[in-house]
Amino acid sequence: MMKPKIDLWEKIAKILIEAKKVIILPHVDADGDALGSSFALGLALYDKGKEVKIVLGEDMGKVYSSLPGRHLISKPENTFPDGATAVAIDTGDTERLGSRVSLFNNADVTVNIDHHITNTDFAQNNLVITECSAAGEIIFHLLKKMDSEITRDIAECLYIAISTDTGGFRYSNTTADTFFIAARLASKGIDIAEISKRVFETITLQKLRLRAEAVNNLELVAGGKVAVVTLRRSLFEKLGTRDEEADGIVNIARTIEGVEVSVLFTETATGKIKVNFRSNDYVDVSEIASYFSGGGHVRAAGSTMEGKLETVREAVVARILEYVRDTGEK
Amino acid sequence: MMKPKIDLWEKIAKILIEAKKVIILPHVDADGDALGSSFALGLALYDKGKEVKIVLGEDMGKVYSSLPGRHLISKPENTFPDGATAVAIDTGDTERLGSRVSLFNNADVTVNIDHHITNTDFAQNNLVITECSAAGEIIFHLLKKMDSEITRDIAECLYIAISTDTGGFRYSNTTADTFFIAARLASKGIDIAEISKRVFETITLQKLRLRAEAVNNLELVAGGKVAVVTLRRSLFEKLGTRDEEADGIVNIARTIEGVEVSVLFTETATGKIKVNFRSNDYVDVSEIASYFSGGGHVRAAGSTMEGKLETVREAVVARILEYVRDTGEK
Repeated sequence: MMKPKIDLWEKIAKILIEAKKVIILPHVDADGDALGSSFALGLALYDKGKEVKIVLGEDMGKVYSSLPGRHLISKPENTFPDGATAVAIDTGDTERLGSRVSLFNNADVTVNIDHHITNTDFAQNNLVITECSAAGEIIFHLLKKMDSEITRDIAECLYIAISTDTGGFRYSNTTADTFFIAARLASKGIDIAEISKRVFETITLQKLRLRAEAVNNLELVAGGKVAVVTLRRSLFEKLGTRDEEADGIVNIARTIEGVEVSVLFTETATGKIKVNFRSNDYVDVSEIASYFSGGGHVRAAGSTMEGKLETVREAVVARILEYVRDTGEK
Repeated sequence: MMKPKIDLWEKIAKILIEAKKVIILPHVDADGDALGSSFALGLALYDKGKEVKIVLGEDMGKVYSSLPGRHLISKPENTFPDGATAVAIDTGDTERLGSRVSLFNNADVTVNIDHHITNTDFAQNNLVITECSAAGEIIFHLLKKMDSEITRDIAECLYIAISTDTGGFRYSNTTADTFFIAARLASKGIDIAEISKRVFETITLQKLRLRAEAVNNLELVAGGKVAVVTLRRSLFEKLGTRDEEADGIVNIARTIEGVEVSVLFTETATGKIKVNFRSNDYVDVSEIASYFSGGGHVRAAGSTMEGKLETVREAVVARILEYVRDTGEK
C-alpha cells in the first residue's frame, strides 16, 4: 500500500521531526478519527520536545472528552505568531477548516494528512492515502516512520480514530492492515471494552425515544420486504429532538429480518418532505431517488420533495414496489 | 499464551491428523462461535481427506444459514457406527451436548476443544484454553499446528466465530491476539462488511417492537442516574414475543447518557418478577442483587423475586438509590 509513496512518507516525517512549533487542525465537527488522529500526532510531537497546539473548530463532544492529549488544546489566538508548521488532519479541503483556515494559511509550512478520495491537495505537503480506513491508520504508519514510541495514550487515541471510522471494524473499509494496526495498539494495554462502551454505546434519551416512536409507526408492506417509517413534525416538537437525531433510523428499519428496502419520510422544519432510502441486497435505491430528483448510492440514497406527506409517501412507496421482487427469498 | 501447553497442542493436532472419521459437535443452541468453529474445523479436516459429519443440536438460525461448510451437517443417525473421533466444540460440559452425548461417548476417541473457564475436562483429550476470546481462536492456532491451509471459507467461519464472541471486538476478552488473527483472516479476502451486516445487524420486527415499548415506558429517576424499565406479561402477549427476546433491553437502558444503573423488571410466564441490573462505572450491582437473593457480577447481576410487581419494583429501586451518588458527575 505504501510502496509507491515511500519517499513522500519520509519527506513528511522529516518535516515534522524538524518542526519546532506545530499547530494541528482537525476538520470542523471533528469526529473520532479527526480527534483521535490529531491527539495521537500531537502527543507524539510533544514527546519529541515540540511545542504543540491543537486547535479545534468547536467544543469537544462529551463522548471524546476524556481523550488523552486534551492538554494540548489551544484557542486560535494563543497559537504561534510565526515559525509554525500547520497540519490539517482528516480534512478534505480548506472549507473543512472553517474559520481556522487563516491559521493554516499563515503558517510557514503546511501539511495535509488525509484519507478522503476527494482531498484537494491544498497544502504545500500532502500525505493523502486513500487506501487507509482512517486518518488514524496514516498517523500510525507515520509515527513508525518518525521513530515515535506508540505510548498507551497514543494507542488509545489511534484506536478511537480507527475503530470509529470503520464503524467498529464493520464497514467495507476495514482491511487486514486495519486489524494488524489494532493488534499493535491493543498490545499497548488500552482498555478496549471501556473505550468501546464510551464511543459506541452512549445515546441520549431523546434520541432513544425518537427511535422508539419510529418503530411504533413503522409499517411493513410488500410481504415484509419494504419497511416504511414516517416522522411527523409534531413528533420532533413533542420530544424536543433535532432533525439530526433521526440519523440512523432508516438503517434500523433496514436491519429487520426479511426487509429489502427501508424508507424514511421526515417532515422538515421548512415544510418539505425528506425521503431516505436504504436497501440490503438487490434494489438500486439511487435509481428510485433519481426518479424523485434525488440521488445517492446503490444501497443508500435520498431526495427532498414538496407536497403533502400522504401524497408523497404514496407515490414513493408505489415506485419502490416496482423494484421489489415478487416471489421467494431474496 | 500457548507456551505451557505446547505439547498438548501437538497432541491434539496429531489425533485429528490421524483420525479418519470425525464427528463434530457444537453445544446446544449453537451461537456464532460454536458454529463457526465447528465448520472451520470440519472444512479443514475435509480438505485433508477425512470423512466429516457435523451434528447440530437443533436447526441452524437464519443468521448463520449461509455459513460455508453446511454440506458437512449430518443427522445423528447418519454418523459412523464405529471408529469415529468425536470432537465437542465450545462446550463446557456434557450436558451442553444434549441428546448427542451418546454420539460423543460411543466414539473411539473423544476430544474437547473449548475456552470456557468452567469446562469440566470431560473428554479423553481436552484442549481448554481460557485465554482465548473464542473457540475460533483456538481452532485458528490448531489449524496452523495441523499445517492446514486457511482457505477463504475457513477464514469466513473463523471470522464469524471470533467477531460474534467478542461482541464485534468490543468485549473485554478482545486481545492483541484476537486482532492479529482477524488480520490474518481478513487477508483471505472475506467480505467483512457483508458478514458484519449479516451477524450483527439483523433483528426481528417483534424484538424491535418490544424494545420500542420498553423505551416508551422507561423512567429515569435519581436525576437521570437510574433507568427503570418494566415489561408486563400483557406486553409479551400483545406482541407475541418470547421472554428471551427481552435480552439486551437492560443494556440499552444502560447506554443512556448520564445513567449509572439500569434495572429491568420482567413479569415471567410463571408469575415471578425477574430483575436484571446493569451499571456503568461505580455501583456494584451484584451487592444489590445479593440483597434480593440473586447474584452476578459487579456490572451485571440479576434476581428472581416473588410478589406484586409494584411492591417489588419499589423495594428494588429504593435499594438502588442508596448506591447512587448524590452529587455532581459520576
